[in-house]
Amino acid sequence: MRIETLFTPNEVDEAAVKGKTVAVVDVLRVCTTIAHALANGCERIIPVESVEAATNLTASLDKKVTLLGGEKEGRRIDGFNLGNSPLEYTPDVVKGKTIIMATTNGTRAIWRSQAAKEILIASFVNMATVADFVGRMGGGLLTIVCAGRQGRFAMEDAVCAGMLIDLLAKENDSDLSDGANAARLLYRMNEQSIENLLRECEHGRYLRSLGFEADIEACSKVDSLRILPVVKEGRIDRQKRARKA
Amino acid sequence: MRIETLFTPNEVDEAAVKGKTVAVVDVLRVCTTIAHALANGCERIIPVESVEAATNLTASLDKKVTLLGGEKEGRRIDGFNLGNSPLEYTPDVVKGKTIIMATTNGTRAIWRSQAAKEILIASFVNMATVADFVGRMGGGLLTIVCAGRQGRFAMEDAVCAGMLIDLLAKENDSDLSDGANAARLLYRMNEQSIENLLRECEHGRYLRSLGFEADIEACSKVDSLRILPVVKEGRIDRQKRARKA
Repeated sequence: MRIETLFTPNEVDEAAVKGKTVAVVDVLRVCTTIAHALANGCERIIPVESVEAATNLTASLDKKVTLLGGEKEGRRIDGFNLGNSPLEYTPDVVKGKTIIMATTNGTRAIWRSQAAKEILIASFVNMATVADFVGRMGGGLLTIVCAGRQGRFAMEDAVCAGMLIDLLAKENDSDLSDGANAARLLYRMNEQSIENLLRECEHGRYLRSLGFEADIEACSKVDSLRILPVVKEGRIDRQKRARKA
Repeated sequence: MRIETLFTPNEVDEAAVKGKTVAVVDVLRVCTTIAHALANGCERIIPVESVEAATNLTASLDKKVTLLGGEKEGRRIDGFNLGNSPLEYTPDVVKGKTIIMATTNGTRAIWRSQAAKEILIASFVNMATVADFVGRMGGGLLTIVCAGRQGRFAMEDAVCAGMLIDLLAKENDSDLSDGANAARLLYRMNEQSIENLLRECEHGRYLRSLGFEADIEACSKVDSLRILPVVKEGRIDRQKRARKA
């Protein structure tokens, strides 16, 4: 398997994703939040790039089963039902609902990867499920797109990408890009201290300054959920059937 | 000192460089080649983004003292005097000459950093000189722009950036971005084996496939040159006066 890793959505071009399996990684927090929402019975998530797009889309959907979620600079958006804390997306809130999600970095990574053969949503909480699904490919091309932060490298996403690579490279005869090799090295230097890493990276420090301590802990819980969110036709749903081995 | 590191020129925007000191890193090979050329008596280097720009500019300059250098996909360009091997830029060839350089990644990193307060050209061969100059700032803002490869992360540039950060962070009370922290970790994992790293990274393997084994060795020679190339008004010259401590 050939594995490439892009540390910011800016690096995504057609050559990087077309015809490939893409795993989008945004640990803090949208990919973790998506996993929580779907694991708790949310029907589907529609990622959008702006508050305006979210508001416009809501107007065309059934308000009884639609929620608006997302963040701007880490905070819930005025008039939205939910922010971007995974812990808000409980079964009593999200079960049976369609959630329109407006977030800064993660949504951008998803949208820029649209030319991919398939797009998976990865974070620490569903790492084993993602690795198992990708591992069943046996070979092929995987591009990991890190959401990063404001167009820059984010340590937590690189380390999470590196964990996926480390799991896959153990199983397969892998060909790693420089970016994938770097991510794997960064994971290995941090594998014993994921929660601390999330606390001390730049975005983690920012989220703690806003009072999101509990989110950091939730985002660091490796393999706490068995769920594989996949993007299809602009919507995120859970993968229902396992890929054949 | 606040140190940020961008792993590809795509990430460079005005906020990243305006009013800051920028160190452009392209280990394989243009920043190494620029250091060799200036150390061997070349008067100045004019970096350009395309073969066409190089050819047009030559027409307006004195042919007796002007040379065309550069590469496309690692190879010398048809009709050019020099390729991108540091070992070609010997005193008998370059002394007193102006060299117009057309290269893929390094030139792009330089051009995109034009809004900086000052731009330094860094590679392993002049690492101590760059670190000494930057260290004399005492504080301030440093952005390291890695040239990368075809818009992607390149391991050799990240490790070289990490070496600069490691030297500076020892001396100063530094505030490192996630990218700078990652580069420093990658350097520390590779500091005992720089030449091997340059042989085994993706671009190193490509250059070896073209027969540039000797270039890899030259590019890995840490502190082999005492030279500080700086970019001023689109031209690269040696820094003549040391910054005051």
